[in-house]
Amino acid sequence: MSRASMDFATAIGLAAGLLMLAAAMMLGGSMSAFLDLPSALIVIGGTVAVTTVSFSLQDMWRAQSVMLHSLVDRSVPPSVAATNVLRIADRVRKDGLMSLQKVVAQLRAQPFLQRGLGLVVDTFPTAEIERILRQEAQAKQIRHSRSAAVFRKAAEVAPAMGLIGTLLGLVQMLGNLNDPATIGPSMAVALLTTFYGAVLANMVFLPLATKLERRSEAEALLDSIYLFAALSMSRQENPRKLELELNAILPPSERVRIFD
Amino acid sequence: MSRASMDFATAIGLAAGLLMLAAAMMLGGSMSAFLDLPSALIVIGGTVAVTTVSFSLQDMWRAQSVMLHSLVDRSVPPSVAATNVLRIADRVRKDGLMSLQKVVAQLRAQPFLQRGLGLVVDTFPTAEIERILRQEAQAKQIRHSRSAAVFRKAAEVAPAMGLIGTLLGLVQMLGNLNDPATIGPSMAVALLTTFYGAVLANMVFLPLATKLERRSEAEALLDSIYLFAALSMSRQENPRKLELELNAILPPSERVRIFD
Amino acid sequence: MSRASMDFATAIGLAAGLLMLAAAMMLGGSMSAFLDLPSALIVIGGTVAVTTVSFSLQDMWRAQSVMLHSLVDRSVPPSVAATNVLRIADRVRKDGLMSLQKVVAQLRAQPFLQRGLGLVVDTFPTAEIERILRQEAQAKQIRHSRSAAVFRKAAEVAPAMGLIGTLLGLVQMLGNLNDPATIGPSMAVALLTTFYGAVLANMVFLPLATKLERRSEAEALLDSIYLFAALSMSRQENPRKLELELNAILPPSERVRIFD
Amino acid sequence: MSRASMDFATAIGLAAGLLMLAAAMMLGGSMSAFLDLPSALIVIGGTVAVTTVSFSLQDMWRAQSVMLHSLVDRSVPPSVAATNVLRIADRVRKDGLMSLQKVVAQLRAQPFLQRGLGLVVDTFPTAEIERILRQEAQAKQIRHSRSAAVFRKAAEVAPAMGLIGTLLGLVQMLGNLNDPATIGPSMAVALLTTFYGAVLANMVFLPLATKLERRSEAEALLDSIYLFAALSMSRQENPRKLELELNAILPPSERVRIFD
Amino acid sequence: MSRASMDFATAIGLAAGLLMLAAAMMLGGSMSAFLDLPSALIVIGGTVAVTTVSFSLQDMWRAQSVMLHSLVDRSVPPSVAATNVLRIADRVRKDGLMSLQKVVAQLRAQPFLQRGLGLVVDTFPTAEIERILRQEAQAKQIRHSRSAAVFRKAAEVAPAMGLIGTLLGLVQMLGNLNDPATIGPSMAVALLTTFYGAVLANMVFLPLATKLERRSEAEALLDSIYLFAALSMSRQENPRKLELELNAILPPSERVRIFD
Repeated sequence: MSRASMDFATAIGLAAGLLMLAAAMMLGGSMSAFLDLPSALIVIGGTVAVTTVSFSLQDMWRAQSVMLHSLVDRSVPPSVAATNVLRIADRVRKDGLMSLQKVVAQLRAQPFLQRGLGLVVDTFPTAEIERILRQEAQAKQIRHSRSAAVFRKAAEVAPAMGLIGTLLGLVQMLGNLNDPATIGPSMAVALLTTFYGAVLANMVFLPLATKLERRSEAEALLDSIYLFAALSMSRQENPRKLELELNAILPPSERVRIFD
Repeated sequence: MSRASMDFATAIGLAAGLLMLAAAMMLGGSMSAFLDLPSALIVIGGTVAVTTVSFSLQDMWRAQSVMLHSLVDRSVPPSVAATNVLRIADRVRKDGLMSLQKVVAQLRAQPFLQRGLGLVVDTFPTAEIERILRQEAQAKQIRHSRSAAVFRKAAEVAPAMGLIGTLLGLVQMLGNLNDPATIGPSMAVALLTTFYGAVLANMVFLPLATKLERRSEAEALLDSIYLFAALSMSRQENPRKLELELNAILPPSERVRIFD
Repeated sequence: MSRASMDFATAIGLAAGLLMLAAAMMLGGSMSAFLDLPSALIVIGGTVAVTTVSFSLQDMWRAQSVMLHSLVDRSVPPSVAATNVLRIADRVRKDGLMSLQKVVAQLRAQPFLQRGLGLVVDTFPTAEIERILRQEAQAKQIRHSRSAAVFRKAAEVAPAMGLIGTLLGLVQMLGNLNDPATIGPSMAVALLTTFYGAVLANMVFLPLATKLERRSEAEALLDSIYLFAALSMSRQENPRKLELELNAILPPSERVRIFD
Repeated sequence: MSRASMDFATAIGLAAGLLMLAAAMMLGGSMSAFLDLPSALIVIGGTVAVTTVSFSLQDMWRAQSVMLHSLVDRSVPPSVAATNVLRIADRVRKDGLMSLQKVVAQLRAQPFLQRGLGLVVDTFPTAEIERILRQEAQAKQIRHSRSAAVFRKAAEVAPAMGLIGTLLGLVQMLGNLNDPATIGPSMAVALLTTFYGAVLANMVFLPLATKLERRSEAEALLDSIYLFAALSMSRQENPRKLELELNAILPPSERVRIFD
Repeated sequence: MSRASMDFATAIGLAAGLLMLAAAMMLGGSMSAFLDLPSALIVIGGTVAVTTVSFSLQDMWRAQSVMLHSLVDRSVPPSVAATNVLRIADRVRKDGLMSLQKVVAQLRAQPFLQRGLGLVVDTFPTAEIERILRQEAQAKQIRHSRSAAVFRKAAEVAPAMGLIGTLLGLVQMLGNLNDPATIGPSMAVALLTTFYGAVLANMVFLPLATKLERRSEAEALLDSIYLFAALSMSRQENPRKLELELNAILPPSERVRIFD
């Protein structure tokens, strides 16, 4: 099963969930009962405003771009990445470190691997390569978790704004109990903000945050593969040993068998 | 008490809980009051959709397969695993490392032990065997915890979808307060989604997530036993010392006494 | 103040809490309003069923036995344990390691200390004794925390079952609003499961879980004392230094002063 | 700003909060509507009983004594502590280790520093002094966090007992709906336990727990200062270097400048 | 995008959120329905009182000053900081350590960098420089997280005070059910404290706490840059290597390229 199915899952899941909701709304009458502009403004506007205060415009922009990126990009499956680096390691073993220089130039799409092998070509000490690459991988994880945190924060804020809107509506309604016929519809409108907040948080923001975290974990696995490869080539070890090490961190279904 | 009782516990527990619920429903009248297709669609469909967005089709498939697996598979009790590796270590002590080669070929059912002893047969340095096996055990733990996370996520989502469904029903009901006779039944239907969400989360998803985590812990103990055994044979130590070490991590009721 | 007061606290606390509750029930009329068999079945039965699914019959049995054990057993106060091991260390200092053999045979009641001193008698290297004993202490902590986890899980499940029962009762009531006179009593019965769940979780399961965790911490302190003693004797250090080290981890009120 | 202001904060804060509450009660009529003995018994008695089960009489006694202590005691400001140890280090530098003996005898009020310098006087190896002092500091932190945990537990239990009391009142009220005139007052009384629980938890127990934790952190900083001082004197380093190290852990406003 | 946009985000976000709320209030009638002095006193006064008990006057003062500071101060973007230290390192490489002395004197605005380079000028051993600077950076992080904790605590307390106020209002109202016409307005007033608490916590305190934590993270990145620079100069390494190391921890958009 290729990585592409993951993005498919996001699109299908989001659409299915929201369609189901729309169907349930229409079954019970009309959707217009669920549309109220001021309520939407309080919940959506309030969530955006509060999340902006918590982070920065830059963080919010990056989070949204990281998300779109991760939905569209096809990341390399771990087994393909492992096969690639094993092939490179094998070639380096046979043709010498010099052959690596040409390979490095072609690795635009995998900047982390490119950087790692670049350090190998420049014959940095292995311990230093490990330190630099680990630092870079960790710094990337922190940046990614920050983007997930934006969505997670929005998922916290949306229900709170929903509650605030409902309280606001209830206070207005309770102050005007003259006409009993208006109680029901007023309550309905007051509850709408809570409804909006729950839908936004649980069906949009939280799953996107979780998805970003999963993508980040997947990328961490790729980075480990590339790190191990760079260290192995730097130590000029036999690629068979690298294969052994990579298979130890790959899930059983992704393990590779290139040598013998 | 054998490991088989664990799976028994799952089946009995799930059945008993749901039967008790069904009995309580029927005592209060008929079960039909608790069946509502749109409500079920919102909660079950919504939970599946949102969980799919959060993870991937692959993760969900794996989680479900890991679960069925762990319910059916009979894992080895730790005392049996300890006895096995001590017997192997004893034989290796007497007949030499070469005798291990035949043993390794028969360990299909314990791939982790097979891999570990394979490294011993290939006379890898002990430190390297430890590093590779620890990495593999850790990577397995992470994969297992991901499967548990799918159920844990579903347990989070189900009550949220229940709340969303109830809010949806309340808004529809409150907008139509003309006929007071319909208020009760409408409220009843609106509450059904909350009921479904609470039952799904607390009686199905959460206990399965916990059970998966417990199985993963049990497997981690087995992996430790196999790791210690491989290291001991690699260091060519006396199996008596291995027995001592294994008993230190085994629960008192599972401790073994093979030598003297 | 001896350790026995701890168990006393448990018995007194549980009894006082539940008596107070019973008194409050009777003040408001009769206790019979609070007894409802189906409600009790849903909450208690459901909690047992769900906890069984989450763990195993074995875990539940062990948790209950660990609890009874810890309520009845009188564990050694840390100052007494420290005094004991200092006396042993002093004697070993004077009469040689051989005198330890007889001591070890009498330590049935403290298996961890017995095991540790046994390794000292067998002249294992100090580093190895430390590794084995630390592993054993850690494995014990993990087993104990698992027993506490059973109660903690039950404390999570009980209110959830209470909510499920109340929702069940509300749905039944709302579907049958014909006779307004029955609304009150029906609501009362529906609320009973929430009441049962809250009482079970907060007045029984949670305090027992906390108590088990505290007992486990107390035992961890004893294990540290025994570990330090074994290492000190293995290194054949002056018992005065051991006294110094033990006082560093003992609370001020439990510190000992045996030498000079 | 001296440390004394911290205790002042506690007294003022507690009094101001509760007075404000009392004022709000009286504004709305009379305070007698908020006094109900059985409700108070359920919440206060139940909280004490359940907390006693969770911990031990000894823990509860110690928590209460630690709290009173920390409210009354004037702990040394870090800058004063740093100045003190730098003066001692300077004198030791000039007059030799022997001069320390007299100093140690006068440090009754700082037992941790006394103990540390005592080890220096006895010319223990520096590594050992560090190990012993770190163990003692850590053990103290654990004891303190246990006292904070008692209050934190009480803050968890109080609202739960409030909920239990309210459910109890509601069940009694709903079973007796004959006289509609009594519904309001009965509900009011039923809500009182929730009110008591919320006030106790949020305005008494939680802030005291937080305060204890802050005091413990402040003491940890003092212990670090004393630890660094003991190690520096044990290594017979220049006190200027100690000043540098202490300033690195002191907040900017507490930094000291004694030398040059 | 410069760092200044971050502060802009705070001001815009706070204002937008609160304006939106005010608009929603006025849409539903008049804002006067949302103003009630006693309710405001309970929530705001109570939150201040309880937060003061939890911390100290000093902590609260510092938190508020740290916040104002971080909103007004323009912190250096990481790429600028990296460029600066690389230029300094390059100059030191060419002109020798002595040239650093003059640089140090001008670094008033970056006290951490100043302190670090000061240690380099004084030719402290590299390991010691690292230890001292890491300790200082960590101590600063702890102080900053304490300021964030004040706001986080206030965000916890405000809704609790809101609930207490609402319970207080409900008890007063339920005790006086004589005139049904007053029920609505009384309920409205009782709900106001919950409304105030939710707004204060979610739209003011929580976002400020998160913002403080983000600022602290940003400063930690600067401190890492300065730490690496000091260590590199202390080891007299080639500044190109420092550039490599800095780029490993900088986000891709902030990476610098000064040499070659």
